[in-house]
Amino acid sequence: MTTNLFNNNALKKKPIQGYKMTLSKQEMSNQNYFVKTEQKLHDDIEKQVMQLFSSSSQGIYIEEQIDAIVNDLSQDFLSTTDANSRIDLDSLLDNYSDSQIPVQPVDFESYIQNLGNNVVAHSIHTSSPRFMGHMTSALPSFVRPMAKLMTAMNQNAVKIETAKALSFCEREALAMLHRLIYQFSDNFYAQHIQHNLSTLGILVSGGTVANITALWCARNASLAAKNDFLGIEKEGLAAALDFYGYKGAVIIGSELMHFSFDKAADLMGIGTQSLIRIPTDSNNRVNIQKLRQTVKECRDQNLLIIAIVGIAGTTDSGGVDSLAEIADIAQAANVHFHVDAAWGGPLIFSEQHRHKLAGIEKADSVTIDGHKQLYLPMGIGMVFLRDPYIATAIEKQASYTMRKGSFDLGKRALEGSRPGMALFLHAGLNLLGLKGYEFLIDEGIRKTQYMADRICSMPEFELLAKPDTNLLLYRYIPEPLRELVAKKQLTEIDNQLINNFNECLQKTQRQIGNTFISRTTKSATTLGKEIPIIALRAVIANPLTKEEDIDAVLNDQIQIAAKINAFNFI
Amino acid sequence: MTTNLFNNNALKKKPIQGYKMTLSKQEMSNQNYFVKTEQKLHDDIEKQVMQLFSSSSQGIYIEEQIDAIVNDLSQDFLSTTDANSRIDLDSLLDNYSDSQIPVQPVDFESYIQNLGNNVVAHSIHTSSPRFMGHMTSALPSFVRPMAKLMTAMNQNAVKIETAKALSFCEREALAMLHRLIYQFSDNFYAQHIQHNLSTLGILVSGGTVANITALWCARNASLAAKNDFLGIEKEGLAAALDFYGYKGAVIIGSELMHFSFDKAADLMGIGTQSLIRIPTDSNNRVNIQKLRQTVKECRDQNLLIIAIVGIAGTTDSGGVDSLAEIADIAQAANVHFHVDAAWGGPLIFSEQHRHKLAGIEKADSVTIDGHKQLYLPMGIGMVFLRDPYIATAIEKQASYTMRKGSFDLGKRALEGSRPGMALFLHAGLNLLGLKGYEFLIDEGIRKTQYMADRICSMPEFELLAKPDTNLLLYRYIPEPLRELVAKKQLTEIDNQLINNFNECLQKTQRQIGNTFISRTTKSATTLGKEIPIIALRAVIANPLTKEEDIDAVLNDQIQIAAKINAFNFI
Repeated sequence: MTTNLFNNNALKKKPIQGYKMTLSKQEMSNQNYFVKTEQKLHDDIEKQVMQLFSSSSQGIYIEEQIDAIVNDLSQDFLSTTDANSRIDLDSLLDNYSDSQIPVQPVDFESYIQNLGNNVVAHSIHTSSPRFMGHMTSALPSFVRPMAKLMTAMNQNAVKIETAKALSFCEREALAMLHRLIYQFSDNFYAQHIQHNLSTLGILVSGGTVANITALWCARNASLAAKNDFLGIEKEGLAAALDFYGYKGAVIIGSELMHFSFDKAADLMGIGTQSLIRIPTDSNNRVNIQKLRQTVKECRDQNLLIIAIVGIAGTTDSGGVDSLAEIADIAQAANVHFHVDAAWGGPLIFSEQHRHKLAGIEKADSVTIDGHKQLYLPMGIGMVFLRDPYIATAIEKQASYTMRKGSFDLGKRALEGSRPGMALFLHAGLNLLGLKGYEFLIDEGIRKTQYMADRICSMPEFELLAKPDTNLLLYRYIPEPLRELVAKKQLTEIDNQLINNFNECLQKTQRQIGNTFISRTTKSATTLGKEIPIIALRAVIANPLTKEEDIDAVLNDQIQIAAKINAFNFI
Repeated sequence: MTTNLFNNNALKKKPIQGYKMTLSKQEMSNQNYFVKTEQKLHDDIEKQVMQLFSSSSQGIYIEEQIDAIVNDLSQDFLSTTDANSRIDLDSLLDNYSDSQIPVQPVDFESYIQNLGNNVVAHSIHTSSPRFMGHMTSALPSFVRPMAKLMTAMNQNAVKIETAKALSFCEREALAMLHRLIYQFSDNFYAQHIQHNLSTLGILVSGGTVANITALWCARNASLAAKNDFLGIEKEGLAAALDFYGYKGAVIIGSELMHFSFDKAADLMGIGTQSLIRIPTDSNNRVNIQKLRQTVKECRDQNLLIIAIVGIAGTTDSGGVDSLAEIADIAQAANVHFHVDAAWGGPLIFSEQHRHKLAGIEKADSVTIDGHKQLYLPMGIGMVFLRDPYIATAIEKQASYTMRKGSFDLGKRALEGSRPGMALFLHAGLNLLGLKGYEFLIDEGIRKTQYMADRICSMPEFELLAKPDTNLLLYRYIPEPLRELVAKKQLTEIDNQLINNFNECLQKTQRQIGNTFISRTTKSATTLGKEIPIIALRAVIANPLTKEEDIDAVLNDQIQIAAKINAFNFI
């Protein structure tokens, strides 16, 4: 609240164009001059701002100008095969060290040009066929103009009064995916697809909020109001556990659960220690026997199991739990079964691969990310609910909106105001169709198998696990250690050397930027001991990635490794 | 997982173009035919999908085609002055009753055309100068092409490896607003703006997540690890309260707190009963004396006060609490002070009005929504943190990402993957500048005063509260009751009649769709009794709204009221 808000620094850096910044003594003494200047400044700002908001010719001119520049920037960006620019982070962050908002509007042409040079040029080419390290990919071209349309419409999906048709469009798109998962009857969908008391799914900003929402529903539904107890929603966790006679509450799943489950356990007040992580087998699947045992122990200890979590596509290796077996355990224990299918959910589109998700149709809730294998822009998470009424457990109202009986989608959601991302989802389901998504899924898995075969045939690499889907873990083995690997005679120190080498390899590859593979740390039991293994992690989901790109990525690593050797790393 | 996934229904509705859907007996017996057809179908799908992903001429052709249609749709949509189409919800929802995903990709031209007819045509004209009912407005034109750019770049702000330059750009934009709020020194910003251990602000999907994040930080920081206690994050709420010797935990604020605080209290396990809502005065500001008293009582009862919440712009009336007084109470009690400035935060841009937010600079955390009075697209919430290290209380890591010491923005955030919305924020701060935003804020408040004056001068209306900012609550008074209102002689039954009338008026106005005002329910103490008052609620933030539009909205209401009278409502 101080006057140095508009400080000298800011003025120096961004001069107010067309106005003298220093005044003569005579001018200073002329109060009239100030009044006039103030008025002219105000008028000038008004003109500039109103041009930006105007839909008249001058407003359209600005929009078209920016559109043209943006089209060029986008096409350049999208056609680059390099994964990354070479600039290092320390040099880059110096460009973003200005904490002063410009006083006057900056000229849009110079701003967009700067943006192109400083941000776009040093952004990650997530669409590059050789960027194979994270769950981002090239997107279908319709998403770009549709992003413009969505912003033009500027609907707020929280309520009907700001998202009339869109609310129904969103419900339809969610029902389509619900049906793909649960395969309920025509009657079921006719009844629930547009009924304001039913919630087949909730569109959220991402998989994390989807997982949190599912667990929130599960927690509240299992500690609901009863007799004179008003429910956990009103009375809180401690009172709820007390009323129902539980000694505590837990969530159980594989050790490979996404870190959003840590967030959920923390946020919901049970603490991350109550997130029970069961060991996995060599295929990255939860150990069913240990899971069953843990469920029994929790019940013996009188702990509420809020949910048992199955994973369809772990973040670090793409592994899929045995969902059908977990479903049986959950059903027998009468516990909410949540499937985190943020990554792997769309396997359901594939006739060839959907058997891997068998059991997902028994889940009480399922998370799927639109911005992963549905090839939609960032910001589309979804949670699907078997019971169309379970979301009532988190329902909230407000006097100015979200009235009971309304179609307002924000009533049963963690988020409030949110954009009309449903437009992308609805368009994706229609413009790609079942067969289009099937093709994308099948291709990703086929190319992953190609890469696995290549890795197995090359002495430089070791495949760390047979891929379940389209994530691949492997590592580079420096020449002197290859024989020991083959003979399975690596010592812990050897392994540490390999880890250091692979970390250096991954960082160097990222820094050079022609190609990109991510890395993760797995633990393996060797010589009766848990040791960490640094793995190179390929995610093959981009339809633009061809076999030759996969070869290029591997060759790139071999060449970089040779250079690292030259520095006598080992 | 059943074969009726691709059921007859879906095939009937969306025939696979170019393929015979019925086969002759001879063809049926010819297996070779099936193999060939299968292959051709696959090749055809591959071609269609790859065209959508292609950046070659044919891919660009599709994108340009859609872009052209979308431009027309957008310009039509943006130039409409009506607030809404007249179609009623029941007719509308029939258009969205299909739970089957099309088997084959739908032709994009017919899809976009349908989208135009069914969704765009029946969406809310949030940019209309006569849509004055919610916190959505016309947006500056640069956001539309920039939405395309953001989608083309498809960065994932969760980590550096998928959002290199964007991460720094986001931090810079957040630091700019942080500085506007807190006015710390050059040194402070030089130190923290790009330091990976510092978090000046967190960009989230909306105000709800911003508020939840702030309270999550506050809760975890006040129940942190100590001695052999591992902190609430790990051990949970019950253990934490036990360790610190509290009997419970509460959040205290005005009765006008947004319903996101109910969500926070529910989600965080304290229960909505522990969200203590203090009554407000006639200006919709929290009663300071009662707040002070409640804080004392909670401390006497040995309850942890997680946070005291001040509101800068209530959702239903735009009222601003006396932040400086609340800050003093919070400071004296050593309690986290959170300000929900989702709506009113940008008043800080205005030399004329920022005094209303005096005290915000003492807040430990502040929520501001970019998609409200920063005139940016939906999906930009922000929480600003006075202490750059408080977000450590919610920090999480994962082996495949979010490593300690990294610049990954997702480490200290409720959300995981999220879009590069920072692009809009950075552009808004630069392309509008301090003076541009000041103009927008000043204009909104000036026009609200105009509307308040008009309402006071018209016998048909009653102004329900002097506007603090740019929200206005008023109601229509049917002619027979005007004298009683003037004499303050309304009975409870009279008031109920007025309520019914205004609800009907608002719904009818919405249905006709030329203009739009929302409604809310306030409670007022009359004759020693709390009675509900249904209020018409104007939100005047759209720079395109002129005085004549305000007149048109009021005249529209008078005309609709006359028609309601004709049906002998009273």
